[in-house]
Amino acid sequence: MTRQMHLGLFLLGTGSHVAGWRHPGAVASFQDIGAIREIARTAERGRFDMIFMGDNLYADPKAHPSYTLRLEPLTMLAALAGATERIGLGATASTTYSDPFTVARAFASLDHISGGRAAWNAVTTANPASAANFGTVHPEHARRYERAGEFLEVVRGLWDGWADDAVVADRESGLYIDPAKVRALDHAGPFFRVKGPLNIGRSPQGHPVVLQAGGSEAGLDLAARTADVVFSVVQDLDEAKAAYAALKGRLPAHGRPPDAVSVLPGVMPVVGRTTREAFDTLAVLQGFVSDDNALALLSDRLGRDMAAYDLDGPVPEIAPSDSYHAFARVMLAKARRERMTLRDLYNLTAAARGHWVLCGSAETVADTLQHWFEAGAADGFNIMPPFFHAGFTAFVDLVVPILQARGLFRRDYAGTTLRDHLGLARPARA
Amino acid sequence: MTRQMHLGLFLLGTGSHVAGWRHPGAVASFQDIGAIREIARTAERGRFDMIFMGDNLYADPKAHPSYTLRLEPLTMLAALAGATERIGLGATASTTYSDPFTVARAFASLDHISGGRAAWNAVTTANPASAANFGTVHPEHARRYERAGEFLEVVRGLWDGWADDAVVADRESGLYIDPAKVRALDHAGPFFRVKGPLNIGRSPQGHPVVLQAGGSEAGLDLAARTADVVFSVVQDLDEAKAAYAALKGRLPAHGRPPDAVSVLPGVMPVVGRTTREAFDTLAVLQGFVSDDNALALLSDRLGRDMAAYDLDGPVPEIAPSDSYHAFARVMLAKARRERMTLRDLYNLTAAARGHWVLCGSAETVADTLQHWFEAGAADGFNIMPPFFHAGFTAFVDLVVPILQARGLFRRDYAGTTLRDHLGLARPARA
Repeated sequence: MTRQMHLGLFLLGTGSHVAGWRHPGAVASFQDIGAIREIARTAERGRFDMIFMGDNLYADPKAHPSYTLRLEPLTMLAALAGATERIGLGATASTTYSDPFTVARAFASLDHISGGRAAWNAVTTANPASAANFGTVHPEHARRYERAGEFLEVVRGLWDGWADDAVVADRESGLYIDPAKVRALDHAGPFFRVKGPLNIGRSPQGHPVVLQAGGSEAGLDLAARTADVVFSVVQDLDEAKAAYAALKGRLPAHGRPPDAVSVLPGVMPVVGRTTREAFDTLAVLQGFVSDDNALALLSDRLGRDMAAYDLDGPVPEIAPSDSYHAFARVMLAKARRERMTLRDLYNLTAAARGHWVLCGSAETVADTLQHWFEAGAADGFNIMPPFFHAGFTAFVDLVVPILQARGLFRRDYAGTTLRDHLGLARPARA
Repeated sequence: MTRQMHLGLFLLGTGSHVAGWRHPGAVASFQDIGAIREIARTAERGRFDMIFMGDNLYADPKAHPSYTLRLEPLTMLAALAGATERIGLGATASTTYSDPFTVARAFASLDHISGGRAAWNAVTTANPASAANFGTVHPEHARRYERAGEFLEVVRGLWDGWADDAVVADRESGLYIDPAKVRALDHAGPFFRVKGPLNIGRSPQGHPVVLQAGGSEAGLDLAARTADVVFSVVQDLDEAKAAYAALKGRLPAHGRPPDAVSVLPGVMPVVGRTTREAFDTLAVLQGFVSDDNALALLSDRLGRDMAAYDLDGPVPEIAPSDSYHAFARVMLAKARRERMTLRDLYNLTAAARGHWVLCGSAETVADTLQHWFEAGAADGFNIMPPFFHAGFTAFVDLVVPILQARGLFRRDYAGTTLRDHLGLARPARA
C-alpha cells in the first residue's frame, strides 16, 4: 500500500473563522451537543483519523466567540464516544493548569470508554489570562516547557502502572487484582511528586495518543521526545517543509524513527465545486469580519495589543512574545514577504487564526494537499473548517473522494483504535 | 399528589458488596462502559431520579476492588448522557484535590451535554492516601471543610457569570455575545483567587444539582448551606430520624425551607421473591468475603489499621479518626448495641461498607422503605446494589412496582431535568 495521509478535524467553537458563525445556515452554538455529534459523524463518514478539540482556560467575551464559549473537552469527547465507532477523539488538557494524576486518569478513562480512540493534546497554555482563573501567575515559556516535560513523563509512568493482565477477577479464588502486576510510580521531581498507581487499569491503547503543537525550540524538543502527532503552523510550502524537517530531524536523538511522529500542518480549506464558488465563500466570510474582534484576535496571536497601530500602515517590526511562537513567527514572516498592511494581516488572522488558508475548487485543494504530502511537508493535515456544517461537508464530500480515488487516503478504517489509524504500535509496558 | 420518594442509584465499581463481583453472573469489570450503560438504562427504566458515581483518588490493589478500579466519573457520566434520556447524572469531584474553575466548568459542560441532568457530588476526600498522588499533605478535617465552603461559593459564582440570554448570535449585526450580560467573578478569599467568567454559558439547570454526604458537624453545616441532596449513613431507623432532623433543623438558619434539601439514607437492598431467597443471596455474598479485603475495608472505614486486634474478640473502644466520621460513628454504635465481635463488624462492612443492609422479600423491602419515608427518616433512598446486574434488577423489577402501586414513586418522569425530578426550582442568577 502506498503511504497514506492522516486527517484530523480541528473543532473550535463555531469554526475556525472568527465570523464563520455568521454564514447563513452555520451552526451558531457550540454548546449544542447535537450539532457537535453531527459534525463528529460527518468526520467519521469521511474516515478521518480523529476529531480533536482545542481549548482555552479563560473567556474574553469581546474576542473570537469560539475562544469564549465551548463545552469542556473531556466531557464533550466522552459524549462523542458513544455517538461514533471508529474515529479518534482528542481532547486538549493543559500541563500548566492541571496535574498529572488527574490528566493521566481522565485520558485512560476516555480510552476505555471509546475502545482505544483517545488522544491527549498536551498544551502548555500560551495565553497568560488563564492564570487569573487559577489564582496564580502565568509561568514563563521555558518553565512551562520544563514542567510539561516532567508532566508527560509522570503521565506515561502512570499509564504503565498496571499490567494489561493485572485484573484477574477469578471468582473461584476471590483474587480480583494480582498485586504483583500493579506498581506504584513513586515519582519525585522538580515539579511533581506522584505516588501512583492510577485507580484505572491500563487502557486499550496502552498509552492514549499524544498530540502536540508547540512551534518553539522547546516545543519541538518536547514533541520530538514525547509526541505521536504534531500539528504545525505554516503559511506556505517552504515553511511546511522546514517545520517538517525540524521535527523529523530531532527524532534520531531520542532513538525514534521518522515515522514515529506524524506531522500535520493546520489548514483551513475553503472548498467550492468551482474556483469561483470557493472564492465567493471566502469573500462572504471575510465580509463578516469586524475591526473589533479581528484586532482582538490578532493581538492574542501576536501576544501584544495591536490597537495602538495604524490599521492601514505597514505591519510594525515587533519581536514575538512569550506565547504563540509559531503563529507570530509565520504571520510576521508572511506579512513581510507580501508587504502587508496591518489590515491585511488581521484579515488573514480572522480567517484562520494564523493558519494556512487553502481556497479553491475541490480538485485544486486535493492537488495542493497531495503536492505538500509528497514534497516532504506533511504526513497529513489538520483540517480547520471555517464554519459548520457546510464549511466542513464541502471538504468531506468533494475533496476526500478525490484523495481516496488517488489512493492517498483510506476508503475505510482498517483497525479499531486511533493507533491503528495512525499506524502506531501499541507501546509495551515500560 | 402525595409526597413521593426520590431514588438514587449509587455506582461504585463492581457493586457495593466487597465481593459482589464473585456472584455468578455478576459484572466483574467496572471499566466496561457497555455494562455500565446497561445499568444506567435499567435505572432509567426504574424511573430513578439519578445515577451517581462515588470516587476515590488513590488505588489500593489489596482492598475493595471497587475502590481501586473504575472509570473517571466525569468522562463516564458524559458517556452515559447519550445513552439515557431523563435520568440525572451525578459525578463525584473533590474540593480538596481539584480547583473551582475546572470543576465549575466540567459540571456546566455535563449539564449542557445532558440537557440539564448534571449533579456534582461535592466531597472533601476523606482518605489521606490521596495526597501522595498530588504531591501534597492531606489537610486536616476542619481545613478541608473551610476550603470546601469557599470552593462551593466560587463554583456557584462562576455558574452565574453568564446570563441565560448572554449569547445573542445575531448574524445581521455580528454581535455574538452581549458583554453586558457576562461578568467576571473577581473572587479573592483565603483559599482561592478566581477571576472568571467561565468559558461556558449558563447551563440548562442554571446550577447543576449539588450532592453531599458529609456526616460530621462541619459536613452538616456545609450541606445545610449549599447542598440540594444529602446522603446519610445510618444503620437503623432512630439514627436515620436523627440524621434527617439534624440536617433539616439546620436549614432555617440559612433561610432555606425544609424541602430545599432531600435527605437520602444509603441502603443496600438484598431482595428476593421470598424472604428465604433474599437471605440465601446475602449468605452467598457473605460467603465470598475473605479476611484480607474485609479487614482492609474495615480499617479504611474506621481510619485506622484493625489488623492488630483479635478478630473474635469484642470491637475495641476506639475514637473515630479524622476521616469518615459518619461511617465510624454508626458502625461503632451498632457494634456496641449488638455486642459484636470484630469479625461481625467486618462482615457488616464487607456487605455495604458501613451502610444499612436491608434484606428481605420485595414486600418487606417496600414496607420498610415506606415506613422510613413516612416516619421522618428519609425523603427517598440512595440504592447501593451489592452487585450488578441481578442485584439491581431485583430492586427495579420487584420493589419499584410496589412503590409505584402505592403512589410513593413516579410511574414516569414528569420533567426533563434532574431539578424537575427532585422538585427543585431553577435558581435565578444571583
